[in-house]
Amino acid sequence: MDFIARSIWQINKNGLVYMARRLKEFNIGSGQLPLLMLLYNNKDGLNQEEISQLLSIDKGATAKAVFKLLDEGYIERKDDPIDNRMHRIYLTKKANKKKDKLLKIAKEWQEILLNEFQKNDKTHMLESLKKMKDNSMDYK
Amino acid sequence: MDFIARSIWQINKNGLVYMARRLKEFNIGSGQLPLLMLLYNNKDGLNQEEISQLLSIDKGATAKAVFKLLDEGYIERKDDPIDNRMHRIYLTKKANKKKDKLLKIAKEWQEILLNEFQKNDKTHMLESLKKMKDNSMDYK
Repeated sequence: MDFIARSIWQINKNGLVYMARRLKEFNIGSGQLPLLMLLYNNKDGLNQEEISQLLSIDKGATAKAVFKLLDEGYIERKDDPIDNRMHRIYLTKKANKKKDKLLKIAKEWQEILLNEFQKNDKTHMLESLKKMKDNSMDYK
Repeated sequence: MDFIARSIWQINKNGLVYMARRLKEFNIGSGQLPLLMLLYNNKDGLNQEEISQLLSIDKGATAKAVFKLLDEGYIERKDDPIDNRMHRIYLTKKANKKKDKLLKIAKEWQEILLNEFQKNDKTHMLESLKKMKDNSMDYK
């Protein structure tokens, strides 16, 4: 019997290797890419708690990604205009300048994975994976 | 844009959480399950190099899984009958006794992931994931 979990594990592992290699010149790792993608996707101005929720990662992992991206100058933290004990995260000019290149890397991996899939199959795969992800979320 | 890599990462992460919880009573972790599954799948008597290749994991990860399973009494190492510098890995009685329960856990996760998939869609998903895995293997 072939287990889905095994394929998923392998694809994930190979993806991390691919990303590590491609992101090296940007001085970031695969752990920071989802946060950047989230911010690029019109979510500038989130606080860390919102980021944790949207990325389904714990506070520690969020803090780590935020710290690395701050350190590399991709994001900046500003006080919340209403509650100044809270900080909000914004993309820097540097991040916006790299946006197209980073999106391209993410898309290229997608294209590698979907190589030789028919167009209908691609759409179906995206939907099915989302369903599988939703099914798995009770166990996070 | 929804990235496949993100769903894959999330499903994998949730799967590791699920497995860690379910495997606790067996004193093994998710890192050892693929090796056990391989041996259960009529592959008793492999050496570590063959295991590395079949599981697509490096020698270090194989050694770690072998060590843990030896330590917990699930496998034993015997000298190769021809080349006694080489060891081969065999399931113990304990492992065979636990086989059905462990297979059940792996199958249950599969069923959780494929919840509400039509039968045709299940087959299609297994094939598509295998194709995606193969596509990703140039980057391992």
